[in-house]
Amino acid sequence: LPEESQPAPLQIVLVSPRNPLNIGAAARAMANFGFTHLTVVAPYAPHWQEARSAVGASDLLQNAKVTESLAGAVADCTLVVGTGTLTHRKPEQPVVALPDLPSRLSPEIERGGRVALVFGPEKHGLTREDLSCCHLLVEIPTHPRQPSMNLGQAVAVCLYQLAARLTAPARDNTQPHPSSSRPAALTAPSADLDLLSGVIEKVMLAARYSPTSMQGANRHDLRLFLRRLALTRRDARRVLGFFRRVLHRLERRPE
Amino acid sequence: LPEESQPAPLQIVLVSPRNPLNIGAAARAMANFGFTHLTVVAPYAPHWQEARSAVGASDLLQNAKVTESLAGAVADCTLVVGTGTLTHRKPEQPVVALPDLPSRLSPEIERGGRVALVFGPEKHGLTREDLSCCHLLVEIPTHPRQPSMNLGQAVAVCLYQLAARLTAPARDNTQPHPSSSRPAALTAPSADLDLLSGVIEKVMLAARYSPTSMQGANRHDLRLFLRRLALTRRDARRVLGFFRRVLHRLERRPE
Repeated sequence: LPEESQPAPLQIVLVSPRNPLNIGAAARAMANFGFTHLTVVAPYAPHWQEARSAVGASDLLQNAKVTESLAGAVADCTLVVGTGTLTHRKPEQPVVALPDLPSRLSPEIERGGRVALVFGPEKHGLTREDLSCCHLLVEIPTHPRQPSMNLGQAVAVCLYQLAARLTAPARDNTQPHPSSSRPAALTAPSADLDLLSGVIEKVMLAARYSPTSMQGANRHDLRLFLRRLALTRRDARRVLGFFRRVLHRLERRPE
Repeated sequence: LPEESQPAPLQIVLVSPRNPLNIGAAARAMANFGFTHLTVVAPYAPHWQEARSAVGASDLLQNAKVTESLAGAVADCTLVVGTGTLTHRKPEQPVVALPDLPSRLSPEIERGGRVALVFGPEKHGLTREDLSCCHLLVEIPTHPRQPSMNLGQAVAVCLYQLAARLTAPARDNTQPHPSSSRPAALTAPSADLDLLSGVIEKVMLAARYSPTSMQGANRHDLRLFLRRLALTRRDARRVLGFFRRVLHRLERRPE
C-alpha cells in the first residue's frame, strides 16, 4: 500500500487489550475517524486471534503491528501520549485535557513528528513502567463518580476530538456553522405572507374565531406571527393552498 | 431523589436498542459524562432485562424510563435532536455538526427548555417516522469510508462533546447570543405539537384537503413543518384554539 510507505502522523497503541470486542471497537472508531495505524502490544494471543478473525474485522486489524513491548511500539515516535484515569495516581508528566490535545499535537505533526496515543489494558490501565514511555498524559474530562471509561469508548472520544481538529486546524470549531447544514431555502417574500394573512383572516371570520371587536388585534398578531415563523416560499404556498381549501369548505356551509 | 424533582435539561433516548452490551455502554458513557436521565423506547424485552440485570448495571439503568413510542418519550421536550448517519438520506431538518451542537443547545437549556438526544436502533438507525419527532439532526463528522458508528461509541462521543461545553457556558465567550436581546419565550414541548398536529390533520380531512392517498405523507410533512416553526407554548395554544374552532365549524356543516 502506498500509505504504508509514509510514516503515520498518528498511531494508536493498545497495550495488552483483553476483550476482543474492545479491540474491534477500537478499530472501528479508528476507521470512523480516519486513522489507519494500529499497534497492539503483547496481546493475549487467543483474544487477539478472535478479534482479527471476527466477521467484518477490518483491514486495519489485519495490518496492525504487534510488538512485545510498548517501548518497541513507540520506537519511531517523537511524542508519546498516555491515556487513563488519573484519579488514583499522581502524574509525573504534564497532563493535558483532551479538548486541548489537538493544539498540543498539531505543531508536532506539522513539523514532521510522529505521535502515538497509548491506551492501557481494560482492568488497570497503563502501568508505571508503560507511563515512563510517555511524554505527556491526556485526561478525558469525566465525572468524578464514574471517571473510568470503557476502552472502545475512550478510543472513540479521543479520536473524535483529534480528527475534528487535527485534520482541519484552520477551522474554528467554536463558531456555529449554520451554513454547513444545507443551503437554506429562500424565505417567503412579504407579499406572499400578506396574501396568506388575508386568507387566514377570512378563515378566522368564516369560522367565527375572530369576533369583530378582536379583528384588528388578531390581524396584527397574525402578521407578526407569520413573519416570526420564517416560512419558505414553498411553505407559504402550501399553507395558502390548505387555508383556501378550508375557506372554500367553510363558505359552502349554508347559514 | 432530589434530582428527580428537577426536570432534566438533557435526556438521552435510545430507540429500540437490540444489543444489551450497547445499552450498558450507553449508560456507562452517560455516567462518565455526568448525565443521568435515560429513556428507552420500545426495547426488545429480553435484551432490556439482560442489560438491566447485568453485573454492575447502574442506578441509571434501573431508573430509566421506558416508553412505547418516541413521541411519548419526548413529550415534555422543547428541542429534540436526532442522531445518525446521513449518507443515504436527504435530511429534512437542519443538520448541525457535533462540534457546533453545544452552542446550539445552550441557549435552549439556559432559558429552561428540555432537550432530548435521540439514538436509533443499531441496524438501521432512526426511521422516517422517528425523525418526524426531531427538530434538528446532529452529525458526527466521520470518515466517508466508515461513517457508521457503534451505538455505545456514538453516545460516548456526543456526550463528551456536550459535557465539555454545556456545563461551562461561561467559558464560551466567543459565542453570539441570539437570546441576549430579550428572554425568548419557551418553545412548545413535543406533546403540544403532537396535539396540534392531530387537530390540523382532522381539519385537513374535514376540509377534504388531504385525500386518503396523501394522508400519511401530509401527516409526516405537517409534523416536520410544525417543528421547524419553533412555536412558543402560547403560539401553539392559540393556533390550537383556532383550528379547533375551524374544525368545529367544518363538522357542523351538513353534507
